[in-house]
Amino acid sequence: MNWRQHKVTLPKYHRGFHLITKHVIQAVPEIQKLSAGLLHVFLLHTSASLTLNENADPDVPQDLETSLNTIVPETLPYRHTLEGPDDMPAHVKTSLLGASLLIPVHQGVLCLGTWQGIYLCEHRDDATRRSLMLTLQGEPLH
Amino acid sequence: MNWRQHKVTLPKYHRGFHLITKHVIQAVPEIQKLSAGLLHVFLLHTSASLTLNENADPDVPQDLETSLNTIVPETLPYRHTLEGPDDMPAHVKTSLLGASLLIPVHQGVLCLGTWQGIYLCEHRDDATRRSLMLTLQGEPLH
Amino acid sequence: MNWRQHKVTLPKYHRGFHLITKHVIQAVPEIQKLSAGLLHVFLLHTSASLTLNENADPDVPQDLETSLNTIVPETLPYRHTLEGPDDMPAHVKTSLLGASLLIPVHQGVLCLGTWQGIYLCEHRDDATRRSLMLTLQGEPLH
Repeated sequence: MNWRQHKVTLPKYHRGFHLITKHVIQAVPEIQKLSAGLLHVFLLHTSASLTLNENADPDVPQDLETSLNTIVPETLPYRHTLEGPDDMPAHVKTSLLGASLLIPVHQGVLCLGTWQGIYLCEHRDDATRRSLMLTLQGEPLH
Repeated sequence: MNWRQHKVTLPKYHRGFHLITKHVIQAVPEIQKLSAGLLHVFLLHTSASLTLNENADPDVPQDLETSLNTIVPETLPYRHTLEGPDDMPAHVKTSLLGASLLIPVHQGVLCLGTWQGIYLCEHRDDATRRSLMLTLQGEPLH
Repeated sequence: MNWRQHKVTLPKYHRGFHLITKHVIQAVPEIQKLSAGLLHVFLLHTSASLTLNENADPDVPQDLETSLNTIVPETLPYRHTLEGPDDMPAHVKTSLLGASLLIPVHQGVLCLGTWQGIYLCEHRDDATRRSLMLTLQGEPLH
């Protein structure tokens, strides 16, 4: 095995930061077969994003949401407002956080730090389900 | 084919967000030959950046520019000011947005979401032409 | 050689932006053996980050630090405050800047622009030493 690609549709999430580490790992069981590699997690959208952050205290995702709302307020004089006041701030947040993660695979497991979890950051008030393209490559375990 | 690298010099752009999806795809025709792969787009500069965002409404790149100018104002008490008031904010914006994108290739095409376009974010008032290093790798179509 | 992985523990740094380009390059001597490739630099933490920025003027890392402190103030009404006022802002900065870089390798050298250096961004007042997982892959020089 050299390359594997899986398209994954996530559950519907409300606005905010949501841990999806388990969704991602379950969608790519081939991780277990690699001694060294990289997993690319790519979100196919422009008003939601992906980030790595603390996976333990539920206050962290709440504080991330309120912090981003302060950094990118809905009250700026945006021109792109057809879909409501949360639309353009969602695009700005997506560019700040990014829509893609690259994570090492080492000895059959995703090599995340102890406190690192994968978050889907849903920036719209009423979003549809979001899709990921997962791309795995690496060197097989002997 | 396993690896291809192309250095590309973009046209000169004024300050703001500019769609370069076509420039990138035209520079790497080998994308068409891959069943699965990854394209790395790397900007060799520290006062401009790359981002994925909405490719349809021309208000979006304008709002991205004004939003970033609000988030990173030119009026902060910067020390690095030799090249003018737009210099240090350009460096801050570059770190916030990032200088590099990694995009999946699937069945011979760049796997972007419907609304995703590649933007060059030019943060300087009077910049020279910017250069990209493009690195493509993947598994050939049979 | 196709894949190499090295786990690296950095020196202890105080809060701020610190150039670590040399640490990274010295930890992966196999870069010299590749004609084309990619080096992935991955930080295993959620309160520090990695960025590429200007490597020459020492005012730049100072301005990056003060700018980020302005964009993500310690005075927001955070809930996650057990470890002090620098804790939650550190998590927000990590999501804004990101914990991972992907850099091209070309003809045996890391393909950075003239002014690009790799920074460790330490967002905590009193942090322990930080660890990186470095993953290199590529095509050998003939």
